[in-house]
Amino acid sequence: MTATTIPSDKALVPFVSVDHMMQLVHSIGVEEMMRGIADYIEADFRRWESFDKTPRVASHSPVGVIELMPTSDGELYGFKYVNGHPKNTKEGLQTVTAFGLLASVETGYPVLLSEMTMLTALRTAATSAMVAKYLAPKGAHTMAMIGNGAQSEFQTLAMKAICGLKSVRLYDIDPAATAKAAHNLASQGIEVVSCASPEEAIEGAQILTTCTADKQYATILTDNMVGSGVHINAIGGDCPGKTELAEAILHRSDIFVEYPPQTRIEGEIQQLAPEHPVTEMWQVITGKVPGRSSDRQITLFDSVGFAIEDFSALRYVRDRLQETGLYHALDLLADPDDPRDLFGMLQRAAPAKG
Amino acid sequence: MTATTIPSDKALVPFVSVDHMMQLVHSIGVEEMMRGIADYIEADFRRWESFDKTPRVASHSPVGVIELMPTSDGELYGFKYVNGHPKNTKEGLQTVTAFGLLASVETGYPVLLSEMTMLTALRTAATSAMVAKYLAPKGAHTMAMIGNGAQSEFQTLAMKAICGLKSVRLYDIDPAATAKAAHNLASQGIEVVSCASPEEAIEGAQILTTCTADKQYATILTDNMVGSGVHINAIGGDCPGKTELAEAILHRSDIFVEYPPQTRIEGEIQQLAPEHPVTEMWQVITGKVPGRSSDRQITLFDSVGFAIEDFSALRYVRDRLQETGLYHALDLLADPDDPRDLFGMLQRAAPAKG
Repeated sequence: MTATTIPSDKALVPFVSVDHMMQLVHSIGVEEMMRGIADYIEADFRRWESFDKTPRVASHSPVGVIELMPTSDGELYGFKYVNGHPKNTKEGLQTVTAFGLLASVETGYPVLLSEMTMLTALRTAATSAMVAKYLAPKGAHTMAMIGNGAQSEFQTLAMKAICGLKSVRLYDIDPAATAKAAHNLASQGIEVVSCASPEEAIEGAQILTTCTADKQYATILTDNMVGSGVHINAIGGDCPGKTELAEAILHRSDIFVEYPPQTRIEGEIQQLAPEHPVTEMWQVITGKVPGRSSDRQITLFDSVGFAIEDFSALRYVRDRLQETGLYHALDLLADPDDPRDLFGMLQRAAPAKG
Repeated sequence: MTATTIPSDKALVPFVSVDHMMQLVHSIGVEEMMRGIADYIEADFRRWESFDKTPRVASHSPVGVIELMPTSDGELYGFKYVNGHPKNTKEGLQTVTAFGLLASVETGYPVLLSEMTMLTALRTAATSAMVAKYLAPKGAHTMAMIGNGAQSEFQTLAMKAICGLKSVRLYDIDPAATAKAAHNLASQGIEVVSCASPEEAIEGAQILTTCTADKQYATILTDNMVGSGVHINAIGGDCPGKTELAEAILHRSDIFVEYPPQTRIEGEIQQLAPEHPVTEMWQVITGKVPGRSSDRQITLFDSVGFAIEDFSALRYVRDRLQETGLYHALDLLADPDDPRDLFGMLQRAAPAKG
């Protein structure tokens, strides 16, 4: 016979599993949820200066990277665990998996543990669309989506929900990926055009999104492909040695970033001199500096993903726990009645004898 | 009606709850388990140079600290989340709570999530005793245990299991804490003496363990209390501004540490000049440098807790999962059949209509 102990409320941490996260998405609607997450991200970018910021803590290996991305606003602390293993896809695994946590700064006790593979896809797309709202040319209606992997449908629907996108032009080096994305987007209320080349994909597009996964210096967009007046949303250049744009494009663009110390290491701008001027997005959002200032300007959002975006997404999920009940209570923390009596708690959990 | 999705094996991460951890301790025996964890820690200290090491990543607030402690041996990656909030005790909360994770470096996929409040208590005591095995005077049989909080019983029993301790002399500024520890240790096969002063506690003791929790420069041991030949096991000085020993003691001692860059910030030696000589324990364990070299020498283990010890403890727990079955399978990772089809996985999880 085994004695069981009933954990106290303080010992239980709400846990959002992948299944619960998917139920949450469906109960809210994927576009509405990305709109909501974008609002949380925008609100947190507005109070950028109140956050502890640090470049992510990375552990590199020859085949990938494992990272911890912590931040805090003084009331809540959050971090995300995330890996990046481009070769995983060939083995039937996700390139990126993630989970995250929020904790009370006052007590240090976790208040939410959540899957973040799905949530990262949502927050990455929400961030791109929130930024495009500020930087894309007025009336932008068509996006070239180059790279049709796991992030492509989310990018498309976030741009639809937040920027009013009407048409997406898909291209991937692997036609099966394009077919997958086209199939998934077929009934989502947006025109979908499958393209046979990147040149075809960018025809008539005001927003160019690149999201490919190779861990190498690649040139997904060459200089002559990029005309004046477009907004480039560069998602896939997100670790040292991984870029997607020809350097010449960067020199023709006004470059907007999340957190310069991290982007200089991980983003497209690792190709440039360390003093090359960039604009921090939070300053555009708060009105300190202009975003797009002319119709002919090329704006480039050199996105690498920053801890505050995860923090915002976790806040969004946490704020929906009570109304939806879509979580488990996880017995994660030992919390004896007398905090000094951890050993006594252990002893009282001993199996009954006889 | 809600559709449920059955996660693939790859999506499920073994999770050891507090209840399962306590069952694991009882199925193995607390002393045997600390002996086992000490063996894993000692084995990992022997291959110290094969680990990625970094000082912990700390987020400080006026009331406490939240830390992430990552490390990797190239095959497994591990990290611990841990808080330190001395004021928590007054609010009925634990000063320290923790959980940890192991992941495959090859894929980035987590392979174990575990509570670590209980496990940290076990690994801290196991580390102290493993180190005392090398540094305490021969035939040491009596320990003064100053500070009778949550760690005190574990320290005592680890020293009994690993160093042959016969008698513990308890002292705490709060007699209720001493009474609690004495009660818990009463039937554990060791002589327990409750003392009314620190001076009384150290009478006849060869090992002096300090483990108090105030976040301030304190002087738990004064210089004249420490005679020659003893081993001091200083646990409680473990963050900036928190020390337990009079500086004069440090100057009379040979000081042994886990990882100097972290200990200089957090340990007793934050009181000393940055170039004050210290010895790394892994070099003692591998025989590169001597440990205790004379009967009159004062040895001081300035312990702050290092990521490799958590890594070792998590390895120990993971190696026992299959034989004990003491875990849940946690739906933590989204793992679609086609890794590029995260959106399709989400769509297929939609609630059935009608």
